[in-house]
Amino acid sequence: MSKLVFIRHGQSEWNLKNLFTGWVDVNLSEQGEQEAKEAGRKLKEAGIEFDQAYTSVLTRAIKTLHFALEESGQLWIPEEKSWRLNERHYGALQGKNKQAAAEKYGDEQVHIWRRSYDVLPPLLDANDEGSAANDRRYANLDPRIVPGGENLKVTLERVIPFWEDKIAPDLLAGKNVIVAAHGNSLRALTKYIEQISDEDIMNVEMATGQPVVYDLDDKLNIVNKEKL
Amino acid sequence: MSKLVFIRHGQSEWNLKNLFTGWVDVNLSEQGEQEAKEAGRKLKEAGIEFDQAYTSVLTRAIKTLHFALEESGQLWIPEEKSWRLNERHYGALQGKNKQAAAEKYGDEQVHIWRRSYDVLPPLLDANDEGSAANDRRYANLDPRIVPGGENLKVTLERVIPFWEDKIAPDLLAGKNVIVAAHGNSLRALTKYIEQISDEDIMNVEMATGQPVVYDLDDKLNIVNKEKL
Repeated sequence: MSKLVFIRHGQSEWNLKNLFTGWVDVNLSEQGEQEAKEAGRKLKEAGIEFDQAYTSVLTRAIKTLHFALEESGQLWIPEEKSWRLNERHYGALQGKNKQAAAEKYGDEQVHIWRRSYDVLPPLLDANDEGSAANDRRYANLDPRIVPGGENLKVTLERVIPFWEDKIAPDLLAGKNVIVAAHGNSLRALTKYIEQISDEDIMNVEMATGQPVVYDLDDKLNIVNKEKL
Repeated sequence: MSKLVFIRHGQSEWNLKNLFTGWVDVNLSEQGEQEAKEAGRKLKEAGIEFDQAYTSVLTRAIKTLHFALEESGQLWIPEEKSWRLNERHYGALQGKNKQAAAEKYGDEQVHIWRRSYDVLPPLLDANDEGSAANDRRYANLDPRIVPGGENLKVTLERVIPFWEDKIAPDLLAGKNVIVAAHGNSLRALTKYIEQISDEDIMNVEMATGQPVVYDLDDKLNIVNKEKL
């Protein structure tokens, strides 16, 4: 029996400004910091002791993890970061205001980009400013897998290998694991472990900074799920 | 050619209170936080791009690393923590006031404990309150190697395997490495790579929060050393 905790990063500066964020490395807002610390206090209160932490290579998730771990007295546990836990890449929409995008492309089109499982947003080219191809943190990736834009389906396909290679083996070894990540990378993991359909998953929302705790048996079946 | 940066944690709450700290997991003071952030700004100004970070399992070093990396825009780099980078374990002196210890044991005795290379402090027993043997973060260690007190010689003997297994291979692979640790674990590493004698090393002081930058050639010879 092991525990798996998902935590979506606290409010970011761009959540606040209503901008599409994706892989843009924005910071937590002041409220986001407080959410992360509060998450840590709840984890401490729940008495959950972690053996391993995973997070993305984006500052807002990393800092959420650090605040939550520090607040629960566990900043010392092993931590591994991976681009596979990054937010969905929002392509050419990144940095655009959601309202302005709706005015330019129409409400319905923007709704489709945000809420469809398998429609891609307008893509960024590797030569475009802001492309992940020019970011040192992705320099060790095969250029063919650096995305220029993702839907949830593509996000899930790159998140699941991380589940298979890292998270699941830890859980099977009896470790308690915390994953601090993003709305869509966590949605992908949730879809996979809860076997949610392509249609239903788009309506699953994760609150910022709220730990979701799963108890898993030794076959990784969910025995209990609780939001703190 | 690769860069190796040592950074001693910023001022801690117990530095401030003049207590022997060792493996006790005290926090940074407000000044210590500022020192760590300032270190990050200096690293950014120097344009040093890291590939790997190492730190101890003690909060004050971990937080120093995080502040310095965040401030230099590199919080996303891989990080590994190890007890081998911990501060020297100060045995039964941990938590004692340095002045009070001098009054109880005599100035000379305390001076010997603090400044001799190979004299051990009074040891903590595994059953003593505050023993590392009762701390979850050391639960995966062979109980025979959990120290009850260390001198610099013993500290060096447990630090160097980490150099051999982790830091040196990274440097030889051309990676730039930052090590955020403690006065005595960094003294041990400094002694080793600069080949400083047992007598002289006790007079080497590292300022809190000040990055020390080495340029190393492909045989790990020191080409340049600079304090930022």
